[in-house]
Amino acid sequence: MTTETGRAAVGEILKRVAEEGRSALTAPEGRAVCEAYGIPTPQERLAASAAEAVARAGEIGLPVVLKIVSPDILHKTEAGGVLVGLGSEQEVADGYATILANAKAYDASARITGVQVQQMLTGGQEVIIGAVTDPSFGKIVAFGLGGVLVEVLKDVTFRLAPTSTGEALSMVDGIAAAEILNGVRGGEAVDKTALAGIVHRLSQLVTDFPQLAEVDLNPVLATGAGATAVDVRILVDPAAAAEPVRFSQDEILAAMNRIMKPAAVAVIGASAEDGKIGNSVMKNLVNGGYAGEIYPINPKAAEILDRKAYPSISDVPGDVDVAVFAIPAKFVPSALEEAGETGVAGAILVPSGFGETGNIELQNEVLAIARRHGVRILGPNIYGYYYTPENLSATFCTPYDVKGGVALSSQSGGIGMAILGFSRSAGMGVSAIVGVGNKADIDEDDLLTFFEHDDNTELVAMHLEDLKDGRAFAETAKRVSAKKPVVVLKAGRTSEGAKAAGSHTGALAGNDRVYDDILRQSGVIRAPGLNDLLEYARGVPKLPTPKGENVVIITGAGGSGVLLSDACVDNGLTLMRIPDDLDAAFREYIPPFGAAGNPVDITGGEPPSTYRNTIALGLSDDRIHSLVLGYWHTIVTPPMVFAELVADVVEEFRRKGIHKPVVASLSGDVEVEQASEHLYAHGVVAYPYTTEKPVAVLGAKYRWARSAGLLP
Amino acid sequence: MTTETGRAAVGEILKRVAEEGRSALTAPEGRAVCEAYGIPTPQERLAASAAEAVARAGEIGLPVVLKIVSPDILHKTEAGGVLVGLGSEQEVADGYATILANAKAYDASARITGVQVQQMLTGGQEVIIGAVTDPSFGKIVAFGLGGVLVEVLKDVTFRLAPTSTGEALSMVDGIAAAEILNGVRGGEAVDKTALAGIVHRLSQLVTDFPQLAEVDLNPVLATGAGATAVDVRILVDPAAAAEPVRFSQDEILAAMNRIMKPAAVAVIGASAEDGKIGNSVMKNLVNGGYAGEIYPINPKAAEILDRKAYPSISDVPGDVDVAVFAIPAKFVPSALEEAGETGVAGAILVPSGFGETGNIELQNEVLAIARRHGVRILGPNIYGYYYTPENLSATFCTPYDVKGGVALSSQSGGIGMAILGFSRSAGMGVSAIVGVGNKADIDEDDLLTFFEHDDNTELVAMHLEDLKDGRAFAETAKRVSAKKPVVVLKAGRTSEGAKAAGSHTGALAGNDRVYDDILRQSGVIRAPGLNDLLEYARGVPKLPTPKGENVVIITGAGGSGVLLSDACVDNGLTLMRIPDDLDAAFREYIPPFGAAGNPVDITGGEPPSTYRNTIALGLSDDRIHSLVLGYWHTIVTPPMVFAELVADVVEEFRRKGIHKPVVASLSGDVEVEQASEHLYAHGVVAYPYTTEKPVAVLGAKYRWARSAGLLP
Repeated sequence: MTTETGRAAVGEILKRVAEEGRSALTAPEGRAVCEAYGIPTPQERLAASAAEAVARAGEIGLPVVLKIVSPDILHKTEAGGVLVGLGSEQEVADGYATILANAKAYDASARITGVQVQQMLTGGQEVIIGAVTDPSFGKIVAFGLGGVLVEVLKDVTFRLAPTSTGEALSMVDGIAAAEILNGVRGGEAVDKTALAGIVHRLSQLVTDFPQLAEVDLNPVLATGAGATAVDVRILVDPAAAAEPVRFSQDEILAAMNRIMKPAAVAVIGASAEDGKIGNSVMKNLVNGGYAGEIYPINPKAAEILDRKAYPSISDVPGDVDVAVFAIPAKFVPSALEEAGETGVAGAILVPSGFGETGNIELQNEVLAIARRHGVRILGPNIYGYYYTPENLSATFCTPYDVKGGVALSSQSGGIGMAILGFSRSAGMGVSAIVGVGNKADIDEDDLLTFFEHDDNTELVAMHLEDLKDGRAFAETAKRVSAKKPVVVLKAGRTSEGAKAAGSHTGALAGNDRVYDDILRQSGVIRAPGLNDLLEYARGVPKLPTPKGENVVIITGAGGSGVLLSDACVDNGLTLMRIPDDLDAAFREYIPPFGAAGNPVDITGGEPPSTYRNTIALGLSDDRIHSLVLGYWHTIVTPPMVFAELVADVVEEFRRKGIHKPVVASLSGDVEVEQASEHLYAHGVVAYPYTTEKPVAVLGAKYRWARSAGLLP
Repeated sequence: MTTETGRAAVGEILKRVAEEGRSALTAPEGRAVCEAYGIPTPQERLAASAAEAVARAGEIGLPVVLKIVSPDILHKTEAGGVLVGLGSEQEVADGYATILANAKAYDASARITGVQVQQMLTGGQEVIIGAVTDPSFGKIVAFGLGGVLVEVLKDVTFRLAPTSTGEALSMVDGIAAAEILNGVRGGEAVDKTALAGIVHRLSQLVTDFPQLAEVDLNPVLATGAGATAVDVRILVDPAAAAEPVRFSQDEILAAMNRIMKPAAVAVIGASAEDGKIGNSVMKNLVNGGYAGEIYPINPKAAEILDRKAYPSISDVPGDVDVAVFAIPAKFVPSALEEAGETGVAGAILVPSGFGETGNIELQNEVLAIARRHGVRILGPNIYGYYYTPENLSATFCTPYDVKGGVALSSQSGGIGMAILGFSRSAGMGVSAIVGVGNKADIDEDDLLTFFEHDDNTELVAMHLEDLKDGRAFAETAKRVSAKKPVVVLKAGRTSEGAKAAGSHTGALAGNDRVYDDILRQSGVIRAPGLNDLLEYARGVPKLPTPKGENVVIITGAGGSGVLLSDACVDNGLTLMRIPDDLDAAFREYIPPFGAAGNPVDITGGEPPSTYRNTIALGLSDDRIHSLVLGYWHTIVTPPMVFAELVADVVEEFRRKGIHKPVVASLSGDVEVEQASEHLYAHGVVAYPYTTEKPVAVLGAKYRWARSAGLLP
C-alpha cells in the first residue's frame, strides 16, 4: 500500500500547487503523484542535449516520445514541442534539435529546461480510469474501456471512493464489454488485477487528498503484464474537500426515536374548521387512536376536538416531542423559535412555500433556527408522517391502520398518496409512511437509521428524486440492507425525468449510471417504476429468504412455463438444471407426455394431487431453493382448490421448518383473482394475468439476499 | 441494379457448383458472384511468374496479398501459400518465389495455376454483412460492426431479404454503435450509402438464387469513399430454396369466413354428461346464443341439450361449416375423413395427444386428410375459439359476451385462459379469442388476414412461441398493421424461455434479435410481457390516433411529473418543448409557484378549474398532440370530481372534432380506483398507483401510428 513517503510526496506537490494558486497540476506533477501512489506511468528522463536524449532513450527503450520542458510553454503541442514515435537514435537526435528550434520559433524568450524523453507504449488495451467529486456522492471513481466504447456506447461504471480491491475488480468485470479484457479474437488477456490496483490506489489518493477535484488517467494502457497510466490530468479545488454536516448515529437515533414515538404532539395551527389542514391533522391524530398527549396550538380557540387549546406552544404544561406545523410558511420562523425553546425534538413542516417555490432564504432561515435549538426538521412541503405502532397519523391525509412491517417514504406528496392508496387497497401492513419533501434537514439516511433499529420494520421502501448527501445514504443503506431489504425508486432516471425533477425540487440532475452503480454497491434493490416499488414492498417481506440460487418452475400451463422462464432470466434468476434422480422423481407424478426438466410441465388436465405432489417434492428436496408456480384454470383443479392446496402444502412444510420462497402466476377466468388473494394472504406471492410480477418480486428478494451475503 | 448479364454469370457459376456437387464456392467464385451483383471486392490479377506478379501489383497498387492458386491445394494458409502486406516490388518478387517453394514442399505433385495478386486494403471501418436462411423467416440479411463490437456486444441487426435500399440504410443506422460510422474521435465518416448498397444487393442476390444458404461478407471495409467486401464465403444448399406451402389471400379469406361466421356447427363427440369436453362445448354454443344450426354428433345419443343428435356427421341433413372435435386424438383421423367428405371448411381439433406429446405422425396424418378434402385445421391441442359478433363460443371454457373490437389469439391454452379472465375482469370488448395450439395448419397469418377484413375487429393481439412461417406472418402483419394495430407477445425471448418453448411445442428456439428486428420491420407492436399484451390490447383502441409527436404532461403532483417524464423517455415519446406563447398561456391558469414548461406542474392544492383550464388548453392548442395527466388526490379536487371533469372536457372537444390521446396516472387513496375506471370508460386510459402503465399504452399507440405511416 501507499507509503508515508508517498503520501508526503503528494502533500508536498499539492502544497506547492496551492501556494502558486494553480487549479491544475503539470504533467510531471501528475505523474509524480501517480507514482507516489504506486500507479505506474511511462518511464521518462530529462535530457539537456541531443546526445543525452539519445542516451536516455537507450535506457528507456525505443520508440520514445520527446516533449519540451519549459515553464514558459504551457501548450506544448501548439508550440511544436511534442514528437511521437521516434524509433531510432538518429530520429531522437534530430527530434531534439527540431523541438528546440520549434520552441524558439514559438517564443524566443522562453526558458528551456530541456526535453523530456518518455517511453512510448504501443499495443495493449486502452482503458479510462478516473475520479471526480460528485455533488451528492463526493469522491467517486470511474472505469471504462477507452476509445469508441466509452464515447459511443457509454460503457462505464462508477463506485464510491475509496474502493476495496474487490470492489475495484468488480468494476473491471462489470462493464458490458468486460469480455474484451479477457482477450477476444486471439487478443491477449490483460492483467485485470493491475487495472483494479490502479482503481483502488486512485480511490485512496482522492480520499487522502480531497482537494483533488478531478483525476483523469486516460488512456491507461493494459497488457498481459500490467497497466500504465499514459496521460494524467489532475485538477485541484479546495471546495472539493468540503464535507457535509453529519450527525452521529446516536444523535440521529435519539432524535428519530422521539419523533417517531413521541409522548406528546403539538399541532401548531390546529383548527376546528373542516377543510383546514390544521383540522385534518387534529382529526387524524385523535381518530387514528394516538395514545400520547395532543396539544392543539391556536391563539383564538379554547378547545379543539375536545382537547384544550393553547395560544402558544410555550404555554403547554408538559414536554412536547413533536410539533406539527399547519400554518403558512411565513409564520413558521417565529413559531419554530418558540417550539425550539420548549425543547421539541422534531418540527414537522407541512406548509409549502419554501425551497420548492424558490424561497430558499426562508428555508435556510428555518433550518438555522432549528439547528440553534437542536430541533430536527421533517419537510418542509410534506403531507406529514404515519407510524402505525404508535397509532400516529401526523398528516392531513386520511389515517392508516393496517399494521405491518413495511416502512415507506416519499419525496413527493403525490407519490405519498399513491403509497397510501395502494397500501390500503392491497391490505399491505405498514409500520410507517413518511413524507420528506424538500429535505431541508431529515433525509433518507436519518429514516434508514431509525428503521434499522425499529423492530416493527422489516423492509424499507423509498421514493426519491435526489439525495442531498448521497454518500451518507450509501453508507447507511449498505449497513441497513445487510439486515433488512431497502427498496428504492429513483425518479429522474432519464434526462427528461431529471429535468422535471429539477423544476420540482431544485435537485441537481444526477447521472443515472452513477446512482445505479452506487445504489447497487449499497445493497439497495432498485425498483424500475412506482408500481414495482409498491409490489416489491408488499411482496418481498412475505417471502422467506432463499438458501440458494436454484429456482424451479412447476406449471400446469406449458405456455406460462415459457413466459415464466423468460421472466426468470430477465430478473437474474437461475433455472436449476435438474439432476437425473430428481427428474425421475418428478416424472413419478406427472403424465408421460408432461415435460420434466425445468420448467416441470405437469400439463393442463391434472387433478389437485399432481400439483400437490410436485410442489411437495419441490419443497422437500434440499437442492431446490425456490418455486415458481404456473397455474392453469381447469374444471379438474379450479382456482380456489389450487390456492387452498398450495397454501396448505406450504404451511405443512413451514411447520416442519422448511421455508422456501414460493411465488405463483395464475392464468384463468376471474376466479383466479380471489385465488391469488388467498395465496398472498398465506405467504405465497401470487398474481393473476401476469407471468412477470411474481417473478419480479422473487428476483427482488434474491437481489437483496445476495447483497446481504445470505446466499452461498 | 443487377443486370441480366450479372444474373446469368451467377447462374453459370452456381450451375457448375451444383454439377460438381459442392456445397461451398471457392474464393474466386465468391468474389465473382459479388462482382456480378455490383458488390465491390478487392482488385486481383493472376500472375504466372515473379515478374508478372510485380507487374500486376503495379497495376493494382501496393501493398498486395499473394495467394497460391492450385486446384490441389485447398488449405492455402496451411500450405504456406498466402503472404500479406507485401509493400515493395522486391517483396512481391521474393514472395512469389517463397509461395511456390512452400507449395512444392507441401505437395510436390500439386498442379500450380499461378499466384493471385490481390489488392490489400488498409484502414477503414470493419463491418460484417451476411445473409442466412432462417428456418422460419427464410432469407434474412444481417449487418453489424466488425471485430469486438459484434463478437462481444452482439451489436447486429437483421431484416427480411430482399430489403429496399431504405430498409438497408435503416440497418446501417440501426445498430447501437451506429455513431461510429459517422466518424468519432476524428475518424472519417464512412460511406453509409455504399454499405446500404451492399446489403441491398446481397439481399437481392439471395432472393434471386435461394439455393445460396449462407453468404458471409466478413470483413467489409468501409471508408469515406466506398466499401469493399474483403472476404467472401458462400455456402449452397438446394434445400435452402424450399418454399413453404402457402394459400392465397382469397383462399384464406374464403375458409376463414366460413370458420369464423359459420351457418352450422357440428360437435363431434357431443355429450350430455357434465364435465365432458363435448358437453362443455355444446353448452357454450347453446348458452352463448349462437344463432346458427348446432349438430351434436354422438352414435349413442338421440338428443343432446334438446338438439337432435346424429351418429355421424355424414348423417347431418344440411351443410356444415365447422366441425368441433371433442374426441380422443386416435379417433380424429376417421372422423375427419367423414367431416371432409361432407365439405366442412374448418376442423377445430380440441384434443391433445398430437405433436405436443411427440406424436408428430398422427398430426401429419390428420393434416394430410385435411389437405385432401380442402379442410383447414385449427389446432390441435386447443381450447377452441370465440367470435362474439356471431355469439359463437366453440370452446370448452366459459362463454364470453362482452363484445368489442379486440381480437386475441394464443398458442397456449393457459395463456388463453388468462386472456379470458383479464378480459372479463377489465370489461374488455372482444371480437374473437382463438387458440392456435400446435398450429398444424391455421397459423397467425391466416387469423390476421381474416381480422384485416373483419369490420368487428379494431386491434389484433397475439401470444406466440414460434412462427411456422415467419415470412408469411411478417408480410401479412406488415399489410394488416398499416390498417389496424397488431400487438405480439413473443414468448421464449430468452434462451431459457426458448428452451422451455422447445419442450412445450417442439418449436425451434428463435434468435430473439431476429424476431425483434423483423417484427418491428412488420409494424408489429411488441409487448414485453403478458400483462403488457393485455393492457395494450385494452388501451390502444381506446385512444384516438395522435396527429404528431408532441406530448405534454399536465400534473398536480410534481413527483408524478418526474416519473411520467421518465416513462415518456422509456417509451420513446417526445416531451414537447413548449414555445413561449404557450408557456405564458399555461401560466395564466396555474399558481405563480407552479412550473410551466413540460411537465406543466399545476401544483397540488388546485381546484377542479385549474385541471379543467389547463387540460382544455392542451386539447385546443394544435401544436400539442397528446396529453399525459398526473392527478394528486386532495380535498379540493377529489378523485371522482377529477375523473368527471376530465371525461367532460375530453368529450366536449370530441364534439368539436378534436380527438387527441389522453392518458392519466392517479395518485391517491382507494377512491382513485373508481375514478380510473370512470376515465377508462370515457376513453381516457387511466390507472391508479402507477406512472408506467398509462404511458406505456400511449407509447404502444405511437409505435403503431409511426409504423402505419400516420405521423408526419
